[in-house]
Order: sequence, then C-alpha cells, then structure tokens
Amino acid sequence: MKKQYTIGLDFGSLSGRGVLVDTGDGNILAEAEMTYPNGIMSRRLPDGTLLEGHWFLQHPQDYLDVLEYVVHELLKRSNVKTEQIVGIGVDFTASTVLPLDEHMQPLCSQAKFENHPHAWVKLWKHRSAVELAADMARVCREQGLRYPEWHGGRIPSGCLLAKVMQVCEEDDEVYEAADCFMEAADYITSLLAGGPVFSGPFAETKALWSRESGYPDEDFFAAVDPRFKHLPKEKLIDHFPDAVVGYPGERVGNLCEAMAKRLGLCPGIAVTAPLMDAYAAMPAVGICASGRMMMIVGTSTVMMSLSDKENYLRGAASSQPCGYYPGKWNHVFGQPTVGDGLQWFIDNCTPGCVQKAAKENGKGIQEYLTELATEVKPGKSGLLALGWFNGGSSLTGNSRLSALLLGLKLDTKPEEIYRALIEATAYEARMIMETYEKAGISVEEIIACGGIAGKNQLMMQIYADVLGKNVNVSHCGQASALGSAIFAATAAGKETGIQSVIEAVKRMSNQHYHVLRPIPEHQKIYEELYQEYGRLYEYFGHGENGIMERLSDKKQEEGNRC
Amino acid sequence: MKKQYTIGLDFGSLSGRGVLVDTGDGNILAEAEMTYPNGIMSRRLPDGTLLEGHWFLQHPQDYLDVLEYVVHELLKRSNVKTEQIVGIGVDFTASTVLPLDEHMQPLCSQAKFENHPHAWVKLWKHRSAVELAADMARVCREQGLRYPEWHGGRIPSGCLLAKVMQVCEEDDEVYEAADCFMEAADYITSLLAGGPVFSGPFAETKALWSRESGYPDEDFFAAVDPRFKHLPKEKLIDHFPDAVVGYPGERVGNLCEAMAKRLGLCPGIAVTAPLMDAYAAMPAVGICASGRMMMIVGTSTVMMSLSDKENYLRGAASSQPCGYYPGKWNHVFGQPTVGDGLQWFIDNCTPGCVQKAAKENGKGIQEYLTELATEVKPGKSGLLALGWFNGGSSLTGNSRLSALLLGLKLDTKPEEIYRALIEATAYEARMIMETYEKAGISVEEIIACGGIAGKNQLMMQIYADVLGKNVNVSHCGQASALGSAIFAATAAGKETGIQSVIEAVKRMSNQHYHVLRPIPEHQKIYEELYQEYGRLYEYFGHGENGIMERLSDKKQEEGNRC
Repeated sequence: MKKQYTIGLDFGSLSGRGVLVDTGDGNILAEAEMTYPNGIMSRRLPDGTLLEGHWFLQHPQDYLDVLEYVVHELLKRSNVKTEQIVGIGVDFTASTVLPLDEHMQPLCSQAKFENHPHAWVKLWKHRSAVELAADMARVCREQGLRYPEWHGGRIPSGCLLAKVMQVCEEDDEVYEAADCFMEAADYITSLLAGGPVFSGPFAETKALWSRESGYPDEDFFAAVDPRFKHLPKEKLIDHFPDAVVGYPGERVGNLCEAMAKRLGLCPGIAVTAPLMDAYAAMPAVGICASGRMMMIVGTSTVMMSLSDKENYLRGAASSQPCGYYPGKWNHVFGQPTVGDGLQWFIDNCTPGCVQKAAKENGKGIQEYLTELATEVKPGKSGLLALGWFNGGSSLTGNSRLSALLLGLKLDTKPEEIYRALIEATAYEARMIMETYEKAGISVEEIIACGGIAGKNQLMMQIYADVLGKNVNVSHCGQASALGSAIFAATAAGKETGIQSVIEAVKRMSNQHYHVLRPIPEHQKIYEELYQEYGRLYEYFGHGENGIMERLSDKKQEEGNRC
Repeated sequence: MKKQYTIGLDFGSLSGRGVLVDTGDGNILAEAEMTYPNGIMSRRLPDGTLLEGHWFLQHPQDYLDVLEYVVHELLKRSNVKTEQIVGIGVDFTASTVLPLDEHMQPLCSQAKFENHPHAWVKLWKHRSAVELAADMARVCREQGLRYPEWHGGRIPSGCLLAKVMQVCEEDDEVYEAADCFMEAADYITSLLAGGPVFSGPFAETKALWSRESGYPDEDFFAAVDPRFKHLPKEKLIDHFPDAVVGYPGERVGNLCEAMAKRLGLCPGIAVTAPLMDAYAAMPAVGICASGRMMMIVGTSTVMMSLSDKENYLRGAASSQPCGYYPGKWNHVFGQPTVGDGLQWFIDNCTPGCVQKAAKENGKGIQEYLTELATEVKPGKSGLLALGWFNGGSSLTGNSRLSALLLGLKLDTKPEEIYRALIEATAYEARMIMETYEKAGISVEEIIACGGIAGKNQLMMQIYADVLGKNVNVSHCGQASALGSAIFAATAAGKETGIQSVIEAVKRMSNQHYHVLRPIPEHQKIYEELYQEYGRLYEYFGHGENGIMERLSDKKQEEGNRC
C-alpha cells in the first residue's frame, strides 16, 4: 500500500509549528515553524493605537501567514507527493477569540475597526473579564446550575463567553458589528473547510456548551445581563443553521478549493476538528487510558489525566468528557508559572558574576545555573518557595496569590534560589497529582513533554524525586502538532483505514521516553519539605492569612494612583 | 585657659578609628583610620592552619598596630602639642575575648599555641557556644537567678563566659595555659594603664558581673560544670588582687611610660575605662536622658534608649544600669542584619543589566539601586519581607530564623525587592520601638548615626515614615570615637574641669542633625503594611509555624553530611 501522510499544525502563543507525519508509523518526515510577525500585542495596535491596561491581543493575519508558510515548508522539506497527503488538523491556544463579520472576515480587517482593541483577537491569557465570569458563577449558584463543576468550581475569566460579554460591555460598536465570535481554532478550521465548523472540546471547555444540551438556556444568559438573552443564537454556534460541530478525529469537512490552492494541497482531503494545544499532546505521547499523568512543561504547565467515569475534580481547569476517547473523562489542571518564574529569576535576580561565569564557560545563563543547582543537595539550601509569580495554580484558582521565598541567609547562593523555584513547581505538581489520587484516578507514572521537559534534566529529576514516580520524558519534540496529525489520520479513515483515535494512537504515537527514576534519599528529604510546603500552601493559599491578596489589591490601587 | 584635647579610639570589626577632640567644644581636629591587617580570620590562622566550622577570630597585634598608627596620625594631622593632650579612651566591639599568659601576653603569640584556634581573639560574632549559654540559662532557672533578665530573658551565646567555657570544652591545653581571659577592650586599656584594668559595663553585659555583688557565686558556676566552680578567681577579674574596675568617665589609670613612649604621648595622662563601641555613640550625639531613641545603623543595627528606673525589657540584648549616667538604665536591642542583608542582595541578586546601568550612570550599584528604589511608592511593589538573613533581632533571640520575601510577581523589579528589604528593617525597628513604649520608655524622636544612616537618605526617610517619628541623622561621622574622647575628657577632670559625663556631653557632643520627617500619606500606607508584617512576624518568629528553624536545622544537617 502506498504511504499516506497527514499534516498537524500547532498554533501556540508566539509561533505556529507543523509536522508532516507518516500515518503508518507516526514517523515525522518534516517539521517547520514560524513566529507570528505581530507576536502578542500588549502596548499598541498595528496602527499605533496605544493600549492601556492589561491587553494580550493577536493579529489574525499572522495565523494565515503561518499556515501558508508552514505547509509550504513541510511540502518542500519532506518532498512527498501532495496526493499522498490525506488529512489536515490543527490545535490552538484557547480561549483565543475573535469577532467576525457576516463574510467570516475578522472585524479588525475593516479600516473603521482597526483602532478598536476589541476588534482584534484576544489571546487565551487575556483574562480581564473577571467580574463577568463572577457574574456567571453567581447566576449558576442562583439557578442551581452545575456548570462551575466543569471548571473546578468556577467560571474561568478567560473563557470565550466572558471574552464576548466583555466586548459588549466595553465596545458596543464592535459587539453590534460582529456577526459572530469564534475561537481562533474554529476560525482557521472553518477557512480550511470552507464553511462554519466548530470543535466540541472548545465549546465544552470554553463556552459551557455540551454535546447533549448545547449552551445554557436563555434564562441563564438573561440573568447575567438581559442583552445576552439570545447570545448563542445571535453570535455563537447557534447563529449558523449549517454549522458543523465535531470532535478531533472526526471529519468535519473537506479541504476547500480556495485553501487547497493557497496551501498547495489537494482539495477534498479530510479536515478534522481542532483541539486545544496542550490537550493534543496526550494522544501524541501515547496516553489513551487512565494511570499515566501527562505534564506539558513550558512557560506554564498543563497537567492532565484520564478517568473512566464521570467525575468533577475541585480545582481542575476542566473536568469533562474527553470526546475522542469514548467513555473517558479528561481532568486538566494548570500551573500558570513554571518556565516563566525561572525566566523572571534569570532576568531580574541573576548577578553579573554568574552571567560572566556562564559566558566564560561558553554556556547560557539558564544552562549554567542549572549545572550549579544540580550540585545543591536537597534540603541543603534551607530554602522553600511558593512559586506563584503569576498567581496560584488552578487548584487555588486565585490569580492574586504571589510568590514567596523563605529561608534566605547571608550565605544563600543564586543557584540555590533557582533550585528552590524549581522545587516549588514540583511541590505544586504533587498537590495536583494528589488531587487526582484522592479522586480515585491513579497515577502510576508521569509522561512529560513540552519545551522545558526535554531541556532541563535537573527539573525532571526533581519532579521524579518529589512526585515519587518515574518521570518519562517524551522524545517527541512536537507533541501537540503530532497529536493534530493523529486526529487528521483518524478523520481520513476512509483513506488510512484507521477506525478510531485509539487505533491511530497505537499506530502513530511516539512512545520513546527518557526515564528518570526517584532517588530514594532525595525522595525522603523532599517528603519532609513537601509537608512544609503544604503548610505554607494552606496558610497563604487558602485564606488563613490573606496577605497575598491584600498586597495584590494594594499594589493595584497604588498603581492606579500613580 | 589653654586648649586641652583628648583622644578617642574606636575598635570596630574590620578597622580601628580615632579622633583628637577639643575638650572645650567637642571640635574634632583630626581623624585617622586603619584596617586590621589580618581582618577577620574565618578560613585559616596566620600560620596557615585551616579552620573548620564557623570561626571569627582576630589577631591581637592588629589592635596594637592600629593603636600606634592612629595615634601617630592624629598627632601629625592635628599638629597639637602633646602636652595639651590630657586623656585617652577606647571603645571596642564586644564580647571580643582573648586568653593571656601571666605576663599579660596573648597566648597566640607563643609559638606552641599559634596553631590553636582557641588561643586567638574570638570576635563578638563568634557565637558557637550556644549549648553552654543554654546550660547557664538552665542553671539560672534551676537556682532562681535573675541573670537572664539582664539580657532580655536569655544568656547570650556570644558572651565572655560562654566563650571562655568553650575554650575549656574544646581545647584543654589553651584553657590550662591561660592565666586569664580578657575582653580585648580591657586588654588594650590595661596596656595603656600598665596594669590590669577592667571596665564595669563589659563585665556587666558580657559576664553576669555587677557592681554590687561581682560575679555569680560558686554554686552557679559549679552547676554549669564542676570545672568552672572557681572560674572568676582562676581566670577572670577576681584573679587579680590589684585589679581596677571602673566606668567610662572614670580615671582607671594613667598612661604608663612604655605606652606613652610608643604612642608619642605624655606619660601620666588620664586613661578612662572602655565602653562597648555602639554604646559609646550615645553621649557623642548628645543623648543623656530618656525620650530619644538611638539607632546606630550599619552592617547591623544597635538601638538603645535610656530609662529613669530599674526595669528589664523582654528581648533586649541588655537592660542594665548605665554606669556613667547616674540613676539611668540603658536598654539595648540588636538587629543583626541591616546593611548585611542589603549587601547580600547587591552581591547575589542584582542582575547584570542593573550593574551595567549603574556603571553607565557613573554610580555605585548601591547608590543606583537606592535611586531607583526612591521612585517606588510605598505599597506599590506588593512586596513584604522579613529581613532575618542573619537570624532574628534580639527581640526574637533566634538565630535560626531566616529571611522571607513575599509578593513576588512576574513584573517585580530588583529595586522593588531592594526597597522591600529596607522596609523590613524599618518594621523590625518599629517592633523594638514599641517594646520601649510598652515598657513606659517614651520615644519622642530618633537619633540615627552609623555608616548607613549618613549615606542612605531613602532608608532614613522610610524609617521616619514607618516609625512615625522624626529621624535626626547625626552629622557626626565618628560617634563612637567621639564618645570615647568625651569619656576621656571626663576622666581628665582634674585638667579639664569637667565633673561628670553629663557635663562633658553638654560641652562636647555633636548635636547637629539632618532631620527627616514622616510623610503623612506614606505613614498611612506603612501603618497597614506594618500590621501585615506583624502577623508574619508572629507566625514565623514566635513558633506558630517553626518552619524557619526546621529548615535551618536541615540545612545544617545536610551541610554536615556533604
């Protein structure tokens, strides 16, 4: 049989990446990447309009440029015949949302809206609709609705519904002009399919939608604000009589002529439903059952585990049916500061002498500090940290928490602080792991992937020691993109013969790992330190002393006064 | 009347300084300083013998070299006639102790002892006799003795008795060979006077001695260890039948021929009893009554206030009769980390970019960071610290406490941390100030001197804002040395006509200050932050969560294992 290939595209926060994969064995023939020309816009819009406050916007044209460049590069680098490419799938950050006009064109592309911040794409980390999310949570309590259970007990302030409502509150003109609001993932997939396509998982995790009952009813929306009474019909999926809603691995459409031409692919190949970027890594590394906890360790960390039955975990970012693994539920937690916190330390606290020594040793600062930190024995620094540089994990759901460093003495060295910050992320990961275990979801081993997992062996060893489990660091550098290619291969089942995502995972996933095992003597010390961590976590994280929230409020207040 | 002058010599931790002063008006005619050639010996003895563990030793010859150099320089620079110099006085760090042979020669000067660490001078910060100090405290409890009240409820581990007992425990040979142990202050003064002279304040604050009853009785010493039963008679003041014990301002002797020749001074001029270095600053800045709190702000900070009656303050380093101000009691508190903690931050946490920017602006890092920190509004950083880099203040009496930094976010800047560390020292100072006030010792204003007070205006402004009082920064750069000269002028009353220390203070003290007043809007914010500080202080400092002690023990333990 002739070889068949699929393309998986992974749209991240700063760049998009793609892989071209053999559907027979998951072999990656080519990879390509392109940074978004406009990156994340926090200070000004492309026309120079200044942004005041906390904005995280993107330019939709960047996604199209990446799509075109990456696909062309994959074709060039792999040198496969286009007829052998049978499917395409994407994954995307979420909730990353934009308003579109009736021709499915981004509103920001109209001259009259180019200076309206709300007309642009709001990136996942744009989370300023805190009050609207709180309003939705309040209505749920009042009406006895269980939606917050899907999100660990909350309505997330970064979700699509909150983002859409915020536009209505803050820029009536854009809101009125918007024919609909879409996840960027759905927008790109709709362009590929040539018609409105929506992904179930995005709607489920970001818009309170469910396969069984769709969106919340009118009473819910009206109670949040009468203007939203008909929101789903006016601006969301229900607005499209011909909308296709599907799941990753399902063929939600065929590549349209126009896009096929633009990308140099054959028209009519399978287009699958998109998935959230972190989630797409799970099939790529071979997880399709409970017992293995997935960690995607990067700037932030996402942790997920599957369960075999419906249950809701307090503090999860989402606890929902998996959709593409029948009967499975996926429970996702987020640690918002991991690589970010270490980078903060590198940028703000690494003394000139360490920078100089790194240079003299021909090493990057991160690499050099990691080397020094590897020599620090557990417990030897006397330090303990709470690593909440960007707010607490989804377990606390509290963005007003801040980081703490304790145990500093006159002999404390930079590499000891660096190690303590790594350890703090490991302790928080263990808190999350124990939340799984308390809910009856066993964790026998860890599968780690993501930017940092492959690069920082010290960190992974500390994770093994603190979690007390083997940490299997995936050899797969492009897990999310590979996951999208796996879904595409399933969607192209007619051509590939693959009947289910599970079958595709068995055939195509990358199950090569570098295994790090707990070191018993380290484990013993970390066990004690973890107990200490737990006490601080409770004291500061759960209101016994709300000092972090109070200082955060005061900082905000004094900041506004300046 | 012909002008008369005295010399005050201030022996610090790293150098000795001297002033030559007009006894008529306190005018300083000349200053001189010399760094100790051997500094603080922590790694090896002069003969190369390695030191293991925590040692802080000095070379007694350094004191003599400084004495000779500084006096000669003063004579040269001031150009006064030596006949006009009528007295000399010294102040010294304490408890800084050395063993002497029967000829009053340091034991370490004998070849057979030069490789014995215990034969050298132990500097004040050599505080490893923790268990012996605890033993003495236990005996006090058992025998109902009130000595711990003199020291805020403890027996200090750095005191002369603990240091002497430690020699006996750890180096029998040195202990046996020692004819006596002396404070370095007494040793130098005895050399000047040509016979054994002891200062009351040193014996009171460092050896449980009192003017009324001398040392504790034999039962006390025997209960600590039978070997110490006759310690005072064998090795301390009581060993000398002809010992003179006096107080600063008293003429305890006349400059002996040998020393006069060596220093180029006239023999027979008044030698006064020495005082602890920080204490000597109090008369120099004009404090001779209650109501004004003295702060000597440097690497560490010493705070003192006078009271009009006998009382004991919990947490004080010492609460004792003043000796030279009749009827007054002096209450002294110590903050072991002030400049030290800031220096740690500069050395270990200031990023290369700040170092570079400082250089480009032609400024030192400390100066540059201070400038940046001046722009940070109170409360705006969201940070709060406990500055226990070197253990807690005498209020906690707990060297196992460590520093804490809370409120770190991804946007936290180095200068914000720097400012938070300054603020932490101010909050701790306020805790001490409130301890005075609770004991009925009013604090109407603050007099600040010492290395940092004159240099860091931001810090002094923060102190004014946090303490809510005017901070008067003394213009006197050599307060301790001036204090010693004031005591010398009193001791030379026959020549100067000065009848009492109070009279000398009125005539000679330097009462020129730069006044910093609290800024009401800052005060208001710091009031709230101080409440937050107080909660953390209680929680970590007073056993509610003993994590700092446990981490400190573990650090020690793992350190020993390495």
